[in-house]
Amino acid sequence: MKIRELGRLLGGTPRGEADREVQEVAGLRTAAPGELAFAEDAKSLELAAASQAGCILVPPECTVAGRTTIEVANPKQAFVRAAQILCPPRKFPPGVHPTAVIAPDARLAEDVVVGPCVVIEPGVEVAQGTYLGAGVYLGEGARVGAHCTLYPRVSVYPGAKIGNRVILHSGVVVGSDGFGYVFADDHYEKFPQRGGVVIEDDVEIGSNSTVDRGSLGVTVIGQGTKIDNLVQIAHNVKVGRHCVIAAQTGISGSAEIGDYVVMGGQVGVADHIRIEEGAMIGGQAGIFGAIRKGTEVWGTPARPLDEFKKVHAHLYKLPELAKKVKEISRQLSEMIKQNQQGR
Amino acid sequence: MKIRELGRLLGGTPRGEADREVQEVAGLRTAAPGELAFAEDAKSLELAAASQAGCILVPPECTVAGRTTIEVANPKQAFVRAAQILCPPRKFPPGVHPTAVIAPDARLAEDVVVGPCVVIEPGVEVAQGTYLGAGVYLGEGARVGAHCTLYPRVSVYPGAKIGNRVILHSGVVVGSDGFGYVFADDHYEKFPQRGGVVIEDDVEIGSNSTVDRGSLGVTVIGQGTKIDNLVQIAHNVKVGRHCVIAAQTGISGSAEIGDYVVMGGQVGVADHIRIEEGAMIGGQAGIFGAIRKGTEVWGTPARPLDEFKKVHAHLYKLPELAKKVKEISRQLSEMIKQNQQGR
Amino acid sequence: MKIRELGRLLGGTPRGEADREVQEVAGLRTAAPGELAFAEDAKSLELAAASQAGCILVPPECTVAGRTTIEVANPKQAFVRAAQILCPPRKFPPGVHPTAVIAPDARLAEDVVVGPCVVIEPGVEVAQGTYLGAGVYLGEGARVGAHCTLYPRVSVYPGAKIGNRVILHSGVVVGSDGFGYVFADDHYEKFPQRGGVVIEDDVEIGSNSTVDRGSLGVTVIGQGTKIDNLVQIAHNVKVGRHCVIAAQTGISGSAEIGDYVVMGGQVGVADHIRIEEGAMIGGQAGIFGAIRKGTEVWGTPARPLDEFKKVHAHLYKLPELAKKVKEISRQLSEMIKQNQQGR
Repeated sequence: MKIRELGRLLGGTPRGEADREVQEVAGLRTAAPGELAFAEDAKSLELAAASQAGCILVPPECTVAGRTTIEVANPKQAFVRAAQILCPPRKFPPGVHPTAVIAPDARLAEDVVVGPCVVIEPGVEVAQGTYLGAGVYLGEGARVGAHCTLYPRVSVYPGAKIGNRVILHSGVVVGSDGFGYVFADDHYEKFPQRGGVVIEDDVEIGSNSTVDRGSLGVTVIGQGTKIDNLVQIAHNVKVGRHCVIAAQTGISGSAEIGDYVVMGGQVGVADHIRIEEGAMIGGQAGIFGAIRKGTEVWGTPARPLDEFKKVHAHLYKLPELAKKVKEISRQLSEMIKQNQQGR
Repeated sequence: MKIRELGRLLGGTPRGEADREVQEVAGLRTAAPGELAFAEDAKSLELAAASQAGCILVPPECTVAGRTTIEVANPKQAFVRAAQILCPPRKFPPGVHPTAVIAPDARLAEDVVVGPCVVIEPGVEVAQGTYLGAGVYLGEGARVGAHCTLYPRVSVYPGAKIGNRVILHSGVVVGSDGFGYVFADDHYEKFPQRGGVVIEDDVEIGSNSTVDRGSLGVTVIGQGTKIDNLVQIAHNVKVGRHCVIAAQTGISGSAEIGDYVVMGGQVGVADHIRIEEGAMIGGQAGIFGAIRKGTEVWGTPARPLDEFKKVHAHLYKLPELAKKVKEISRQLSEMIKQNQQGR
Repeated sequence: MKIRELGRLLGGTPRGEADREVQEVAGLRTAAPGELAFAEDAKSLELAAASQAGCILVPPECTVAGRTTIEVANPKQAFVRAAQILCPPRKFPPGVHPTAVIAPDARLAEDVVVGPCVVIEPGVEVAQGTYLGAGVYLGEGARVGAHCTLYPRVSVYPGAKIGNRVILHSGVVVGSDGFGYVFADDHYEKFPQRGGVVIEDDVEIGSNSTVDRGSLGVTVIGQGTKIDNLVQIAHNVKVGRHCVIAAQTGISGSAEIGDYVVMGGQVGVADHIRIEEGAMIGGQAGIFGAIRKGTEVWGTPARPLDEFKKVHAHLYKLPELAKKVKEISRQLSEMIKQNQQGR
């Protein structure tokens, strides 16, 4: 695509050799003459000057000497958009692989791509444009919306409901039993795990993450929420819309996470906890109580970020403080002794 | 099933329209007229009054105005029992799927259900009533007991021994190599990982959890123990009977966990550690030393729960304490000065 | 193999009945008369005296009364070597299983073993002596080197490059999309994840671990590095050579780990962090800043190990310290009062 044309589609202003073409997106360091990169700050603008990129997206009123650029309001956003334009998602070879095992009553839209060794149980529905990678398993009565990508070896338990444009990476398990037992005499009995699980539109879930079904109610992952690899979402959890949950975080049963919540990696959320809209949870934090709207927290058990940092700074001066207290105590004892002698 | 009959089976006392029927179990909030729910405390009894449930299990001497109830000694336990009666585990379509690949010398009981693309290597034995979901892999010489459920994509390495009524959720790996190396000159050599792994009766293991084989000895998960999703059990670990291990917990090599131990999520247990019977480990705790029988601990490194809580409360008053010490120091210095001047 | 011959191959000195044979390796406690064990310290030499092992590797100038031994410089290293000699890796039945689905243009060396339900997409290359277990998936253009072992259900995304003698355990995912989004107005847009992933020679990765591709650059796992189960390696991470990374550790995007770094389990490394050569990170530590060469650290945020331990000891005396400060304050107030009265 001509740089001029790309500039027009991005609503930006090309400068330089706008009749040359770019075919791909790349980072500033590795970009080739046929590739588009972006620069958004002083440091990356410096890299841009030395880059081989055929074109560089730059912020308003920035130029790079001797380089072809497109000036845009937000280079990173424009870069994402350009990638969508230049590199549309790979088209998988259409059709149903002959090794797939599909129940006669399953209803698949005509253009659904079904890879080798996919297993589709009775009552399943899959809408148009969806790709089911090799070895995907869809349990009885599961529903998958339109334009989803289920990478190889995804397991969907019976009855799970998956929205549109959902991406599930390899090894994701949706709808397995929640972890609930009742202690009876000397052993545990399994509490019924008969609820549902709903993955709303535009959700992406990373490799080998697990989302349990509700025990009696429903587990929900809200629209547009992005979940990283090896994350655990327990039974009856409600995750709001447009949340970001980094790798290896675990959310315990019946927790409720508001919209636009951001969680670092390896965060743990205890059961039945409520985290309100827009909260930000630092990596490895342990959430054992409610988190208010927009609050930023860290630590186990978690505290407001400022407080955590302040306390942590003091913590590492604790040996010094203890020493000081000891010295004060010594001086005081001496003074008391002197006073007593003085009397 | 008639409510009267259900009451009889549960050893409870029906009240109200005991000739009506219930077919399913459900939560109080969502239960329909044909469904059974339970209430066990003041809060849920309140919900019960507004519930559409066809019948509600209630504690001794509790009634709910205008509702059909069954009075039982322990409503939650009775509910579990009722679920077993009303909703027996799904019967999978019997037989061996034609796409399954089964070694000629494998010995499967007659009623074993073998899903599509299951692979069973030579020397495997599977006992009666066991279900092998799509894509399950049983390595050479593995043994699976009776009435087990192996959900799709479970991997069992060669020689693993799995007891009766064991449930392995999707993506579970049993018997992979332990993490053991010997440093030689400038690189690591793999220590032999030739031991075994035994999963005893009535164990349940959640999605994508991993249980390594012993290096030379055996890894054991004791009878009735329940393990959540994404849990790691390393080589030569011995987990006792009837333990409960929540999601994303990791137990390092050769650790020994006694019976009835309860672990929260994301707990880490160092190698060769011994945790005695009935200990309770709080979420995200790090266990780097022995834990005595029945002790409750939290933190990294873990301490007795009471001590942890007390110290943690003091920790967040540390800035205040430091300020106070500074003030005391100032007052003391002043007094020393005055005393010296006074002399 | 005769003990005498084994001793020769290990460069050691046999003592006792060196014409007997051993066929297997085992631990001291469980070894049978046909098996080889090793002892390296006082405790294991004591066990050796009671062991049924047919032969025991012992350190220089050690004997075990009444037992056949081989004296070697380093018994554990020699044991690893002996295991390689006595128990060479299992030869898998050669050939391509008829249920495998292999693109016509994929290039597989003649002796590659391809298990049932393996799926190999177009443009894939697999070198000699490599084993692909049941249900392995190799995405378009992926390359796998010589003498690799990919256990059942490993997923390799398109374009991933895997070196020689690499071992990937069951459920490993290599090359899934990194976790990168750009916030636009009210939702997240996916940042392009079009980079590569390189797993160098002699790497081993444990069950259900995940390694993301680079977003624009490349994710690299260096030669000889060993990674345990359920570990997360994010996009653009560079892990050096001969590192050891224990279970459930997570390394965030663009972090750089030097050679010979050792990480305990459940460690978290924040994005863009640099950990220098030979650093040692304690279990559950959280790394939010650079770690210098050879440093040993612990805690969240991590601190030098000595400092962490010292501070932690003081931490648990904090209630006592607070009490002491209170008492000092009381005494001081009293003295001030006395002084004022005295004037």
